[in-house]
Amino acid sequence: MGKLFVVGLGPGDYENMTVRADRALSACDTVIGYHVYLDLVRDRYPDKTYSSTPMTREAERCRMALEAAKNGSTVALVCSGDSGVYGMAGLVLELRGEDDEPEVEVIPGLSACISGAALLGAPLTHDFAVISLSDRLTEWELIERRLSAAAGADLSIVLYNPASHGRPDYLKRACEILLETLPGDRPCAVARSIGREGESRTFLTLSELADFPADMFCTVFIGNSSTRMINGQMVTPRGYRYN
Amino acid sequence: MGKLFVVGLGPGDYENMTVRADRALSACDTVIGYHVYLDLVRDRYPDKTYSSTPMTREAERCRMALEAAKNGSTVALVCSGDSGVYGMAGLVLELRGEDDEPEVEVIPGLSACISGAALLGAPLTHDFAVISLSDRLTEWELIERRLSAAAGADLSIVLYNPASHGRPDYLKRACEILLETLPGDRPCAVARSIGREGESRTFLTLSELADFPADMFCTVFIGNSSTRMINGQMVTPRGYRYN
Repeated sequence: MGKLFVVGLGPGDYENMTVRADRALSACDTVIGYHVYLDLVRDRYPDKTYSSTPMTREAERCRMALEAAKNGSTVALVCSGDSGVYGMAGLVLELRGEDDEPEVEVIPGLSACISGAALLGAPLTHDFAVISLSDRLTEWELIERRLSAAAGADLSIVLYNPASHGRPDYLKRACEILLETLPGDRPCAVARSIGREGESRTFLTLSELADFPADMFCTVFIGNSSTRMINGQMVTPRGYRYN
Repeated sequence: MGKLFVVGLGPGDYENMTVRADRALSACDTVIGYHVYLDLVRDRYPDKTYSSTPMTREAERCRMALEAAKNGSTVALVCSGDSGVYGMAGLVLELRGEDDEPEVEVIPGLSACISGAALLGAPLTHDFAVISLSDRLTEWELIERRLSAAAGADLSIVLYNPASHGRPDYLKRACEILLETLPGDRPCAVARSIGREGESRTFLTLSELADFPADMFCTVFIGNSSTRMINGQMVTPRGYRYN
């Protein structure tokens, strides 16, 4: 009997992988994932079987991984960022259902909210919400409700999947919802290609964010009412009193 | 001129550290932090100067780290979990202010929401909120507002600092707020001492959670309306349709 590791790779660079993820990838014989994620690791672990499926075929990908593990392979199903947050761990466990086999181990990794925050300074020092703008699997009305609730509760907010080919204007729509509650000069930032070639960060206001040309490589951060820029970094205070 | 690394150690075990955190700790000459966190790394990096300050003296700790780095040391200011999320990165940047020196690098780590989720299955597959129940620096009314907002928006919720010596009943108070909106049988879980000796997980309903004897080593997870238990693990579906 094999085993299935669902592995969070982190943002993409080796340094931001966990030791545990590195060891799982070294130990496995088969690596399965979306092809962009396979490209992140292929050179470092060359002696494995690599299999990919495209976007929208995640159930097939997870079934392939479960099947290979049941057949005796030690499989690493890899995800960018964390294996749980918008990752494949949940779907793997749903598809395995009440079977005890194969054994599944979920290996956490740095999700973009965490790695992006570190790139920007410290925007998530206090309570925050993580919301995906992808309505492929979720009603847009629910996404709007979550955006309004987060803003109304003065939470910092991280937006995943702010745009894609078929959804170029979702970030603008999200900002319009937020601007019903938040001021236009609220500090925001966009972290792009975190941990990869072309990594960049942009600091801007919420009003400017509405017109920012986001793409699928971007993670968006919206500050709370205490967030401010300090020496070019985005900082949300925890509330410590000093001096 | 030295440098200050603000390092997220992850939950506490070596395997769940990032390669980058390991390298920063190996390279530094001085390690500063709360003594519990220093104990996590002392044996593995024995040839360093170790300095600690107690709880409630975080500003002193950060100033000590900034001063040592200004004086030429390569300093690692260590935090459990992530360096940003309820960590020291924000306070370091606040205290450094508009000075360019010393150089500060924020190294992200696995925050308890991420590492705890992986231990429990996949409770954070979809949108979620992270809220601390500590009112040392934050008004309890704001915490309540955030709890209500998160529950009302059908977000999964992660509670940090669910209890401490002076705050034994805060988890009960938080659950009472949540039970105004959520059903008593909502799946929840408590991850305790993640990545450390005595690591444990408890699955229970929201009603049961109200009476759970939480302590400072616990991270609490509350599911959204789709969350369910599958083969002993807590799973929040992303919404993928299969079969």
